[in-house]
Amino acid sequence: MQTDSATGSAEGLVVALDIGGTKIAGALVDGDGRILLRTRRATPAREDGETVMGAVEDVVATLAASPLWEAAGAVGIGSAGPVDAHRGTVSPVNVPGWRDYPLVDRVRRATGGRPVTLVGDGVAMTAAEHWLGAAKGHDNALCLVVSTGVGGGLVLGGRLHPGPTGNAGHIGHIAVDLDGDPCACGGRGCVERIASGPHLARRALENGWRPGPDGDTTAAAVAAAARAGDPAAVASFERAAQALAAGIAATAALVEIDIAVVGGGVAGAGEVLFAPLRRSLASYATLSFVRNLTVVPALTGTDAGLLGAAAAARSADVEGSWARRAS
Amino acid sequence: MQTDSATGSAEGLVVALDIGGTKIAGALVDGDGRILLRTRRATPAREDGETVMGAVEDVVATLAASPLWEAAGAVGIGSAGPVDAHRGTVSPVNVPGWRDYPLVDRVRRATGGRPVTLVGDGVAMTAAEHWLGAAKGHDNALCLVVSTGVGGGLVLGGRLHPGPTGNAGHIGHIAVDLDGDPCACGGRGCVERIASGPHLARRALENGWRPGPDGDTTAAAVAAAARAGDPAAVASFERAAQALAAGIAATAALVEIDIAVVGGGVAGAGEVLFAPLRRSLASYATLSFVRNLTVVPALTGTDAGLLGAAAAARSADVEGSWARRAS
Repeated sequence: MQTDSATGSAEGLVVALDIGGTKIAGALVDGDGRILLRTRRATPAREDGETVMGAVEDVVATLAASPLWEAAGAVGIGSAGPVDAHRGTVSPVNVPGWRDYPLVDRVRRATGGRPVTLVGDGVAMTAAEHWLGAAKGHDNALCLVVSTGVGGGLVLGGRLHPGPTGNAGHIGHIAVDLDGDPCACGGRGCVERIASGPHLARRALENGWRPGPDGDTTAAAVAAAARAGDPAAVASFERAAQALAAGIAATAALVEIDIAVVGGGVAGAGEVLFAPLRRSLASYATLSFVRNLTVVPALTGTDAGLLGAAAAARSADVEGSWARRAS
Repeated sequence: MQTDSATGSAEGLVVALDIGGTKIAGALVDGDGRILLRTRRATPAREDGETVMGAVEDVVATLAASPLWEAAGAVGIGSAGPVDAHRGTVSPVNVPGWRDYPLVDRVRRATGGRPVTLVGDGVAMTAAEHWLGAAKGHDNALCLVVSTGVGGGLVLGGRLHPGPTGNAGHIGHIAVDLDGDPCACGGRGCVERIASGPHLARRALENGWRPGPDGDTTAAAVAAAARAGDPAAVASFERAAQALAAGIAATAALVEIDIAVVGGGVAGAGEVLFAPLRRSLASYATLSFVRNLTVVPALTGTDAGLLGAAAAARSADVEGSWARRAS
């Protein structure tokens, strides 16, 4: 377990938990978004549900050992999905031991009865970007994580919009190619099926890109090849950009956003992704009220999950109608 | 000009205007959604902007001549789009004399300085269905009008969500076929390009359907042929249903709706449209939080525009953050 601490103010302190298939991170975050204490454990993702919960409890115990703990108020959780914020349960695809697992209730008990707010990880990243990142000051925004999967979240009317179950903004599984390839979700032609890192690399390989001597076939390797001018690598990023643009434009037509913030590993490709993304967006976002939409990289980086969980815990940023907080 | 009146209560009375490319309708609508007085004029759509406004003023004058007029409070306008509710202007595609036309200001002046709320016609239909129709009691709903075009609107968290400019829910121009045919909006593969009445009929004709002796090539004629088993007519409705299903499922993934209400002339085809629509929806709405989504026909019929304009005027149904009411 790694633990770091920093100095800061106990003002508005909250407990933040970022729960993914690879790691479980926890932090005490102050009212200015400073992480005063952080800790993490590997997720025992292949173990039974109680073992996974044990790792969460270890993270909480480390935070609770801090003299700052008593000053911490609410708890925010950003979790791999699907989540059900209404019922307080999670069923992360990559954690088979948790199905309809009562995470909110268990975390409430582990944190001495503190109020707990649960959102999906895409919604958490969005809360972080709206609080401290590229969506700050924007009343209507879509934030995306383009990585192994494609997730997202929405800010509408100046507030986070998690939807009744905490999954809103799920742009990865909207169909932009209604006759397209079957997607793991059961649908077809989904944004994720075209734009995720693994699918981006698969398509580059299918079209003739070959990895270097290190055998690296990640999206980052495809990005490096695209920067060097490899046509199959360039074309694969262009296709991913086209799917993301269609999805972003659809979101704009549906809920009127003025900015799309793109983070996650694939976004680390930089202009190899963003240049064709801006070009494609001009082809799909044509209505008068969506034409001024801009696309920018995310700013909160690897802390997005923790900062977003903290933002979700701060009820001021959360739509009153959705959050059933266990207290 | 036609004018009808009915008895009812002056309680919560508002002025409703429904402005389209074919007709301009006006009404006094009470707090229970009863139309106490209604009137209409043909839209002089090919004339200059002032002539069109003259027709609106005629409608208002007829309403103002009623003894009920003094009891009427706010004014609601549902207008053919695009609209800009933020600036109070409209630029209806089929009324070339109005471009960035200051309709809110003009109507405010014509109605003695009453507060005026403007929404697009898809949003108005949604307000009507949420107030009095099939979306009543639903906190998260998409309503669609499938007709010459495809429009729509959203209810989120129990309230109408018109978006900053009053155009949100514009499902007709989201791309569900990213490599598809160019759309009149400048995009490609839009829902409207596949599912609108004219495109539905065009596709049936291209695939071998032939109209009867009356030469009727409307979507209603295609629907009659589909009911009689004509394969090209059936297939064209199935393709329209597929595009609508992909768009509805995308909306559910993005904002978490639990019902989609479909109105407009093409929806009048009944099960010829709704049966394949429900089937297709099962193929695209696969995520746990969208799987229980239902699709039903609209209930407010041809009065949807007036009732929706009245609903928009009743501020209780309108998201506080969007409406800049001139007063």
